[in-house]
Amino acid sequence: MPPGVFGYARTKMSDEELRNMISMTLTCRIDKRENCGDKMEHFLQRCFYQPGQYNSEEGFAELDRRLKEKEAGKLPNRLFYLSIPPNIFVDVVRSASRAASSSSGWTRFIVEKPFGRDSESSGELTRSLKKYLVEDQIFRIDHYLGKELVENLSVLRFSNLVFEPLWSRNYIRNVQFIFSEDFGAEGRGGYFDNYGIIRDIMQNHLLQILALFAMETPVSLDAEDIRNEKVKVLRSMRQLRLEDVVVGQYKGHSKGGNSYPGYTDDPTVPKGSVTPTFAAAALFIDNARWDGVPFLMKAGKALHIRRAEIRVQFRHVPGNLYRRNIGTDLDKATNELVLRVQPDEAIYLKINNKVPGLGMRLDRSNLNLLYSERYRREIPDAYERLLLDAIEGERRLFIRSDELDAAWAIFTPVLRELEEKRVAPELYPYGSRGPVGAHYLAANYNVRWGDISSDDGSF
Amino acid sequence: MPPGVFGYARTKMSDEELRNMISMTLTCRIDKRENCGDKMEHFLQRCFYQPGQYNSEEGFAELDRRLKEKEAGKLPNRLFYLSIPPNIFVDVVRSASRAASSSSGWTRFIVEKPFGRDSESSGELTRSLKKYLVEDQIFRIDHYLGKELVENLSVLRFSNLVFEPLWSRNYIRNVQFIFSEDFGAEGRGGYFDNYGIIRDIMQNHLLQILALFAMETPVSLDAEDIRNEKVKVLRSMRQLRLEDVVVGQYKGHSKGGNSYPGYTDDPTVPKGSVTPTFAAAALFIDNARWDGVPFLMKAGKALHIRRAEIRVQFRHVPGNLYRRNIGTDLDKATNELVLRVQPDEAIYLKINNKVPGLGMRLDRSNLNLLYSERYRREIPDAYERLLLDAIEGERRLFIRSDELDAAWAIFTPVLRELEEKRVAPELYPYGSRGPVGAHYLAANYNVRWGDISSDDGSF
Repeated sequence: MPPGVFGYARTKMSDEELRNMISMTLTCRIDKRENCGDKMEHFLQRCFYQPGQYNSEEGFAELDRRLKEKEAGKLPNRLFYLSIPPNIFVDVVRSASRAASSSSGWTRFIVEKPFGRDSESSGELTRSLKKYLVEDQIFRIDHYLGKELVENLSVLRFSNLVFEPLWSRNYIRNVQFIFSEDFGAEGRGGYFDNYGIIRDIMQNHLLQILALFAMETPVSLDAEDIRNEKVKVLRSMRQLRLEDVVVGQYKGHSKGGNSYPGYTDDPTVPKGSVTPTFAAAALFIDNARWDGVPFLMKAGKALHIRRAEIRVQFRHVPGNLYRRNIGTDLDKATNELVLRVQPDEAIYLKINNKVPGLGMRLDRSNLNLLYSERYRREIPDAYERLLLDAIEGERRLFIRSDELDAAWAIFTPVLRELEEKRVAPELYPYGSRGPVGAHYLAANYNVRWGDISSDDGSF
Repeated sequence: MPPGVFGYARTKMSDEELRNMISMTLTCRIDKRENCGDKMEHFLQRCFYQPGQYNSEEGFAELDRRLKEKEAGKLPNRLFYLSIPPNIFVDVVRSASRAASSSSGWTRFIVEKPFGRDSESSGELTRSLKKYLVEDQIFRIDHYLGKELVENLSVLRFSNLVFEPLWSRNYIRNVQFIFSEDFGAEGRGGYFDNYGIIRDIMQNHLLQILALFAMETPVSLDAEDIRNEKVKVLRSMRQLRLEDVVVGQYKGHSKGGNSYPGYTDDPTVPKGSVTPTFAAAALFIDNARWDGVPFLMKAGKALHIRRAEIRVQFRHVPGNLYRRNIGTDLDKATNELVLRVQPDEAIYLKINNKVPGLGMRLDRSNLNLLYSERYRREIPDAYERLLLDAIEGERRLFIRSDELDAAWAIFTPVLRELEEKRVAPELYPYGSRGPVGAHYLAANYNVRWGDISSDDGSF
């Protein structure tokens, strides 16, 4: 038979019940696609369900029997996708790998964050997984790496001549990684409170993008070559210091007759929690390419906008002939390259331009590429890409153990210090631009956040 | 009284008749502008006419009397705009400067091309003008220098950090200056035949833009500093050789029931004329910045499109990681910066981009700035800018004698050789893309014309 999908969980359910569940969430995404109903039916016929306990080798042995029955001696490869709480990762991997590994094909496991809470717990998790799996079997997913514009980052850098010469401390003044959500921890407060925004967004999503942005040119596009370069750049980074971090937490806010709850108003969040829902950080890479260039990160929940972007601010023009025409705010006249990851994928380069007309007045215009205008097609979800990659054994977008170690090494000391000192987060209203401390942190390094200071007027 | 405009020509005419003539061509350009009718009337009341011979000091003395009457001791500055055939330039300058120079203010003369036919005749013209005028009084107009995007060229280069590091042989593979008209010499054949396209477009308009493009950073934006740099780069250029030139001439063509006349069908053109209506040339600048980079020019009449643009083709990416994704035509994958001077002013940078979706397919997209979208305002005509500059004594966009000498030095030998050998132009149909020889010329230097080979699809 062709490839199939098995569900495995504690709940009792029949194949038919699973198919009903799935069919309610599936739609033919492009209207009027040919044979849509037929294809849906074919897909559902390949879905099966097996109930069982997470730590039970017997349960997985039963799954193994059913798998073998469907495989009928063919297609023996197995991909386990672990959509479970982290405290049962190891139980499942042990049971599944022992009782339900493929006998003649490959067996892979996709795991999602959190990969521990710090260097120690992450290392412990890795060591536990490796009792049952070899590195090649572990696919640590960071779904941000599957985003279209993150995928495109390497294409932009390495297949265009015009960017790479500019890609260093010689021309780049600072780089900003900005992630903001316009909703709070609603409903996930219990999980979230145990991790906080630094672990939830910065140490993984933003740091991964930073590594892709800042790495040296890899030998090839092969997974190991790219991951080698990412590890190198992560290992060149300074440990983050407490004075280079600002933490915030959103508080309740009423606006236009609506009332928005504060983080600690969530009943699943412990009273008096100091878990940050916002953080800003200044990071540094002590290598030849990036020495002295601030890499700023900012991530938060319950902010005024939903957005993820990379902003590259270039240096001032030395000996600028047009300084008289630019006005006193030189920062406004520097070039900026923006890669907007979501929503509305776009790339734009802010340049100075003569305003048409008599006289010599300059302003900033965008050289822009708005995906929705250029590419009239649906952009696949990050998970679609990553699952397909895992099936194909393409590891480029998954995180290797040593990458994970290097990533934790940067953040672990400051996370510990924040918790030991119970550093009080700066409160900010739900739906605001976040705590003002982020502004001062950037100012310490002569940086202004591009998402706030600049005029993105042209679209 | 406020500033006025005097007409001077041989035709007998009254002030009133001149005003009628002018009022027929003037319109209030922006509809419903306030007091438009009043302003028009005020303007017309400042227009006067004085008939006289071109070589007559008495005629200009009469003009002088009328000017003094209107000046009434104030506003004694005088700007002469010579809209006359070149063979009477010197007569007019002699008579006007002797009999009608301002006694207490400045006296300036705007002259338009042709400034001679070659180094000798141009030098002779300059020497003749300088018998009566000093250099500062001569404003040689090249109206292409007044075009919005040509003005913007220096702004782009010198007020943006991202372009200047790329602006050299290290990153630029070739530069193309393309001028095409979609109509022939109709009605101007008699004048045109004496000059040809190389003198009419290349040696002045395109070469001026090339000089602005390729010059070193000037000390300041002052006219003398900019013109010093332009002279330097022109003097670094090799004399153009016959083997680096392709000439063409359009022939009659019938299309869609319409019939278009060939160049020599024009009754004002001598039978058997070999005057080029199209030319392509490969030029080189032998300095440290541009050594070995071909600067290609192409100019023609009666082509399929009306367009003027600068195309900067960047080098191939060394050690391109994405070569497998690019396909075999590496040229198509290089970056290109295009400045479109007319019509529809635009700047765009062609970049390689990942096509959104699963897999890794690259294509070229434009980072673009289309003036008509960004700037919803009327762009002033080049002459408006240049006349205002001449009144204000701003010489930046006018051509100095030594610039003119350097420009002629590049083209004179090949012009002479073309004429002495009566090189037969390659015939091309009216409304076509021009002679195929231009393609081979470019191919000699591994260049492909960007306007033909590339896909400018995105707008």
